[in-house]
Amino acid sequence: MDGRSFESIKVGDSATFSKTITEADVCAFAGITGDFNPVHIDAEAAKKSMFKQRIAHGMLGAGLISTVLGTKLPGPGTIYLGQEVTFKAPVFFGDTLTVECTVTEKKEGKNILRLSAVIKNQEGKEVITGVSTVMKKD
Amino acid sequence: MDGRSFESIKVGDSATFSKTITEADVCAFAGITGDFNPVHIDAEAAKKSMFKQRIAHGMLGAGLISTVLGTKLPGPGTIYLGQEVTFKAPVFFGDTLTVECTVTEKKEGKNILRLSAVIKNQEGKEVITGVSTVMKKD
Amino acid sequence: MDGRSFESIKVGDSATFSKTITEADVCAFAGITGDFNPVHIDAEAAKKSMFKQRIAHGMLGAGLISTVLGTKLPGPGTIYLGQEVTFKAPVFFGDTLTVECTVTEKKEGKNILRLSAVIKNQEGKEVITGVSTVMKKD
Amino acid sequence: MDGRSFESIKVGDSATFSKTITEADVCAFAGITGDFNPVHIDAEAAKKSMFKQRIAHGMLGAGLISTVLGTKLPGPGTIYLGQEVTFKAPVFFGDTLTVECTVTEKKEGKNILRLSAVIKNQEGKEVITGVSTVMKKD
Repeated sequence: MDGRSFESIKVGDSATFSKTITEADVCAFAGITGDFNPVHIDAEAAKKSMFKQRIAHGMLGAGLISTVLGTKLPGPGTIYLGQEVTFKAPVFFGDTLTVECTVTEKKEGKNILRLSAVIKNQEGKEVITGVSTVMKKD
Repeated sequence: MDGRSFESIKVGDSATFSKTITEADVCAFAGITGDFNPVHIDAEAAKKSMFKQRIAHGMLGAGLISTVLGTKLPGPGTIYLGQEVTFKAPVFFGDTLTVECTVTEKKEGKNILRLSAVIKNQEGKEVITGVSTVMKKD
Repeated sequence: MDGRSFESIKVGDSATFSKTITEADVCAFAGITGDFNPVHIDAEAAKKSMFKQRIAHGMLGAGLISTVLGTKLPGPGTIYLGQEVTFKAPVFFGDTLTVECTVTEKKEGKNILRLSAVIKNQEGKEVITGVSTVMKKD
Repeated sequence: MDGRSFESIKVGDSATFSKTITEADVCAFAGITGDFNPVHIDAEAAKKSMFKQRIAHGMLGAGLISTVLGTKLPGPGTIYLGQEVTFKAPVFFGDTLTVECTVTEKKEGKNILRLSAVIKNQEGKEVITGVSTVMKKD
């Protein structure tokens, strides 16, 4: 477990991760969670929905925030305490998401960090925003 | 898309979903999100961690909230606007989680619902709590 | 375990296997190995790469050689000792690969076989070549 | 694509990656490649085999070498030219593998690197060794 130490992290530090969200990802996420809402897994029903096509699960996109926290900032050893997310626009199959997490607050003594997250698609449109709370020992 | 109508839903209504979280689920979630934090995928490193064994991704457990919202309450047709989650205790491989979502507020006119979520493991211990915001057309 | 016996195999014997390599296969391979090189999982980054699109992991294509060895020639009971592969051209999502393995040498007494492998795409272009070393008891 | 530049890499540089190889990984690898050799996917047949239990596909373990090359050393932008692997001992379900890749040679002018790979299990036993050839532009 050799992520960044609490000491070394400064307010304003940021890290990013990008990934294309595929049909396979959405099918697998449905299988893991049991969220078989037709808008995710039924192409015919989805055609008649507000978005006219299948969309990815919001919590799948939000999961990319965890990727940044757990592998980059702070990285391995991070203890995830909480997450708030706002779903602002749909994520379609084939969209490439880029999440950027930025440290906004350090609670010294408690080793707690707050980070803002912004997830954009390949057109630069914000699809998800969030606030993460994590603990990181030195 | 035939979930429950906004009209028919009352404050206090609730729905549940249960699922065992397996090693396979965690491996797949790592593959979908790219979150290869050793605490999830490296049994040897996890032995030396605070939890002494591998744990599931927090956002995997939180994904079960989406399952209730998208398949039961309100069900198909739900538009997911936001989610807050607090990770209170680790989820170990083989734990069976039960999520219960309860309607706490209806914003008439805007067709918006707020629901509280409590996720417990097989011993009744709260592992994740949350608050969901959704929109549901009639 | 009833593959072909060492005795029955002659230099020059060959076997083939074909499979289309899908986006889902590549996503899953990334999840198994942790190889999230953007050229495999980030469509936008891949557009700017040498190949102008996402490509399959080389070791995924090479894995088809193992399929021939373990299921056909020699088949079940084969002990895989070594593999050399050369990556000659990229494998794109949707490409159909055909691997042909041909016995080139028998080491009597040690029950060891050497086989050459050629993997071509649907246009007949060589994408991977290799040499396998296996042991097969009678 | 922001891996390390050819210029910045020195002979002797090394990088590691660790992952537990699960039953789920082996099942998924069988599904991707079609390698349904009973020794990997048939617990009853495997009991009667030389190893007395199911073992992971050799090429799955070897795939972890690609993870180091494509994500760490040299990292994104790496062009994989070739791989030699020797399978020295079986990988069992639940084994935690650690791969270490070390640069052994730089071919200036051609931007080609050779790296040795050693994969050990949680007991420190060498299970796979290899030699990788990659190209990395600056």
